[in-house]
Amino acid sequence: MSLLNIERVLIDGQWRVSSGTQIFQAVNPGTRLPLPREYPVSSWSEIEQAILAAARVSRELRDAPGELFAKFLDRFADRITERSGDFIATANQETGLPVEPRLKIAELPRTTNQLRQAAAAARDGGWSMPTIDTQNNIRSRLAAIGPVVVFGPNNFPFAFNSAAGGDFAAAVAAGNPVIAKGHSSHPNTTRLFAEEAFEAVREVGLPPAFVQLIYRTSHEDGCRLISHPAIGASGYTGARSTGLVLKEAADRVGKPIYLELSSINPVCVLPGVLAERSAELAGEFTTSCLMGTGQFCTNPGLVLLLAGPQTESFVNAVKAKFDAAPIGTMLSEGVLRNFDSGIQTLVAAGAEVLAGGQTGGGNGFSYRNTLLCVSGDKFLLSPHALQTEAFGNGSLFVIARDEAQMLAVLETLEGNLTGAIYSAQDGQDDALYSRIEPALRARVGRLINDKMPTGVAVSPAMNHGGPFPATGHPGFTAVGIPASIRRFAMLQCYDGVRPNRLPPELQNKNPRPGLWRSIDGQWSKADVG
Amino acid sequence: MSLLNIERVLIDGQWRVSSGTQIFQAVNPGTRLPLPREYPVSSWSEIEQAILAAARVSRELRDAPGELFAKFLDRFADRITERSGDFIATANQETGLPVEPRLKIAELPRTTNQLRQAAAAARDGGWSMPTIDTQNNIRSRLAAIGPVVVFGPNNFPFAFNSAAGGDFAAAVAAGNPVIAKGHSSHPNTTRLFAEEAFEAVREVGLPPAFVQLIYRTSHEDGCRLISHPAIGASGYTGARSTGLVLKEAADRVGKPIYLELSSINPVCVLPGVLAERSAELAGEFTTSCLMGTGQFCTNPGLVLLLAGPQTESFVNAVKAKFDAAPIGTMLSEGVLRNFDSGIQTLVAAGAEVLAGGQTGGGNGFSYRNTLLCVSGDKFLLSPHALQTEAFGNGSLFVIARDEAQMLAVLETLEGNLTGAIYSAQDGQDDALYSRIEPALRARVGRLINDKMPTGVAVSPAMNHGGPFPATGHPGFTAVGIPASIRRFAMLQCYDGVRPNRLPPELQNKNPRPGLWRSIDGQWSKADVG
Repeated sequence: MSLLNIERVLIDGQWRVSSGTQIFQAVNPGTRLPLPREYPVSSWSEIEQAILAAARVSRELRDAPGELFAKFLDRFADRITERSGDFIATANQETGLPVEPRLKIAELPRTTNQLRQAAAAARDGGWSMPTIDTQNNIRSRLAAIGPVVVFGPNNFPFAFNSAAGGDFAAAVAAGNPVIAKGHSSHPNTTRLFAEEAFEAVREVGLPPAFVQLIYRTSHEDGCRLISHPAIGASGYTGARSTGLVLKEAADRVGKPIYLELSSINPVCVLPGVLAERSAELAGEFTTSCLMGTGQFCTNPGLVLLLAGPQTESFVNAVKAKFDAAPIGTMLSEGVLRNFDSGIQTLVAAGAEVLAGGQTGGGNGFSYRNTLLCVSGDKFLLSPHALQTEAFGNGSLFVIARDEAQMLAVLETLEGNLTGAIYSAQDGQDDALYSRIEPALRARVGRLINDKMPTGVAVSPAMNHGGPFPATGHPGFTAVGIPASIRRFAMLQCYDGVRPNRLPPELQNKNPRPGLWRSIDGQWSKADVG
Repeated sequence: MSLLNIERVLIDGQWRVSSGTQIFQAVNPGTRLPLPREYPVSSWSEIEQAILAAARVSRELRDAPGELFAKFLDRFADRITERSGDFIATANQETGLPVEPRLKIAELPRTTNQLRQAAAAARDGGWSMPTIDTQNNIRSRLAAIGPVVVFGPNNFPFAFNSAAGGDFAAAVAAGNPVIAKGHSSHPNTTRLFAEEAFEAVREVGLPPAFVQLIYRTSHEDGCRLISHPAIGASGYTGARSTGLVLKEAADRVGKPIYLELSSINPVCVLPGVLAERSAELAGEFTTSCLMGTGQFCTNPGLVLLLAGPQTESFVNAVKAKFDAAPIGTMLSEGVLRNFDSGIQTLVAAGAEVLAGGQTGGGNGFSYRNTLLCVSGDKFLLSPHALQTEAFGNGSLFVIARDEAQMLAVLETLEGNLTGAIYSAQDGQDDALYSRIEPALRARVGRLINDKMPTGVAVSPAMNHGGPFPATGHPGFTAVGIPASIRRFAMLQCYDGVRPNRLPPELQNKNPRPGLWRSIDGQWSKADVG
């Protein structure tokens, strides 16, 4: 094999021939055929070079103003927009996700918007929460944690891309260099991002190794990478099994790792809302569940209903819609296989197949839109197995026999990103809402009323996080600025440090008119004293 | 053995006879004699009862106002003050720490002050950072995480006591019930705190199981306790070895655990300051290092100096002071043994004994004030061993041959709670300060100028935390309000939730005139709209 035709990795400011000895190709999920480009599995020696280069950059940038990172993020967003045609075509080829509306109208603008929001936050600096105690002359703020490794998922080639997505933007806004570990299913999309990021790095005068890219590592090297002494933190979005292996490695050496793992996003549909708008809700649910072929972390994978004739007709309506809806293409053969395995686990645990339940029906990698159903009685016999995430175009309806059982089912749930409750507008469900809400609230990061979980606004109040095993810590969010930025920071206190040695944000004079600081317990934009 | 004379555990609102089958006694470190009271090692069944009771209390209190926790904290502080004589006498007996100034003037008032600060924060609610996005109608805040287990250390019988100290106050202010695991060296002090806490619980009408106390568990049961599904989080202050075992158990199940482990708190003394005030500094250092027989997490355990005649005379001055200073009593035989073992490790790695270096010389458990010295050359040969924490009245001076070596030594340091730099007032050290500060800054939670690390103010800007292995995550602090409270919270987002179902802090009307909320990116005390 000649390594000369293999795509190059971006290490220490150069697009280099990899010293790895293995290669891989991406597959077009719509045709199931391999795509022509070949990508290297990086060797440990080049991974280590990337780590050392990133560590050097971290040191060089320690006093860099937020403005520099803001300029980079804005310029990067501009460049992505200028080259949007390439991005959309490439991602479509690698992921099978539709060009419109998904890639072009939704995900690419969301990605550049996220980068620009991160730029604004980096410029402003309020994310760092400067805190000043004038009486004791103690001052603190959050500051860059050191090189950040980002592992992006398969399902958002843009918005969560390791070289352009939410974790990337947050890590950069905090002032950290990033080592992007591309997802193997869309390496060319990731390469394009790294190209544009690298050009933006040069344009704004950041050190060339500020953004680096490797495509793949062995599992062992992935663990060595995130637990290396020179690494500050990592972000990982993806499958639970791999995430937990990385978490163990990072935890052992006390390196923060922010995980976004599995979630089945329970949706409770209370009886009154079915009386009010059953048909509409069947449509809303079907759209949410099948959108993007169901490949969302916030896909509504479990719907909890109360037994009764209205529920029966709702279930039938959804079944009809699932049967009639077009069948999407899945991201990869692995996703298809895992989805099938998840469905089989649910069926083996007692779920009944109402629609779908087998592969095929669409272009490329596809699986029929799948609706499963199980009684509350059966669910409570195997609550663990029946919470298996089937990542794809399917969902499990759980029919509780009464309100007490609905609550009992909720009380068995693991941590999730979201939990939704639909209730009647006329107040008839309010008592039941109050009864079940505490159990759901404690188990989810985001509690939703009267809508499906699939929309995740990039809002300062968003929580795209939740109790384990949805994530590794229930206090952090992967989406939303400035909160997501704070993950990639350490708390730095200055105790009695002389005024001229303080970072500008902690000096008496507020360096920027818009910067909020907590001064003696009160938020203020004023100077001290 | 009759269990009837054994001290009772506080479980589920009752002082109960333990079902454990092993007992232990505390030892008066000043006399080395066992104290008469006997305490149980709890059985798993009673630990589990405590967990379930705490989980029930968490559910009952989910909508409780911060005012309720504030009342409890204030009332508890009052009761401690009213019974201060008992506390001081008991802690003195169990720890050997002097009544004045330590226990009476410093630590007890600090403890009640901390409880009152936590009360004010609970009342105000600003710690929860209510965040409102009016355009998307998404709102979030930090909220109680669930039952908190607190493991207190040996060295602060009051201020870090598992039933009254910083972690306890922070967990309660966030609205969580606490299971206190007392430290085995001062069980009676902890029992007194639990008694007063329990009375305060009753006075303010909290559920009786809000505060529970167990004295000791097996290591295995300790791990089961903190990783139980019903537990929200844990706080541990103490030895690194035990802390890491607990961390591993908690990490495996994704339960936050906040650790405060070892720290050697490097102090860099730049040449100019020795020219300016060597004698004064020798006194300052000696006081800081020997205070409390050196048993502080922020004890200056490593002093970095540049070789030269001024350093030689400074070292000699400190040696003379160490030889002349009274020798304190250590907290326990275990502390004494570990200190000796730490000193032996340092000596084996090449450190030379300038003063002390052997047991005895004081009352009870004691060890001579110990000053060690090593060259930068030798330090760099065994940087890991020469960072061994010797927890007690000793310190290691590292003499770098030049500025480059001083920097090289700093670059080998592990994470620490604090790092201090003393430099000349006349500016002659400023270039060296700038050269070494980045290396130190990245490795410590609190950077200090011109003073010793042993004072830890309870300030909103304090960071009593730092990179691993000083703690488990560099973004959190164990001291300082409101930041320490946020550790015991989860991020709860409300997306499209109907107005009457929102917690008061997230409703349009600001429920308290003093409550800061972030509304559309601006901190405000106003109502929405």
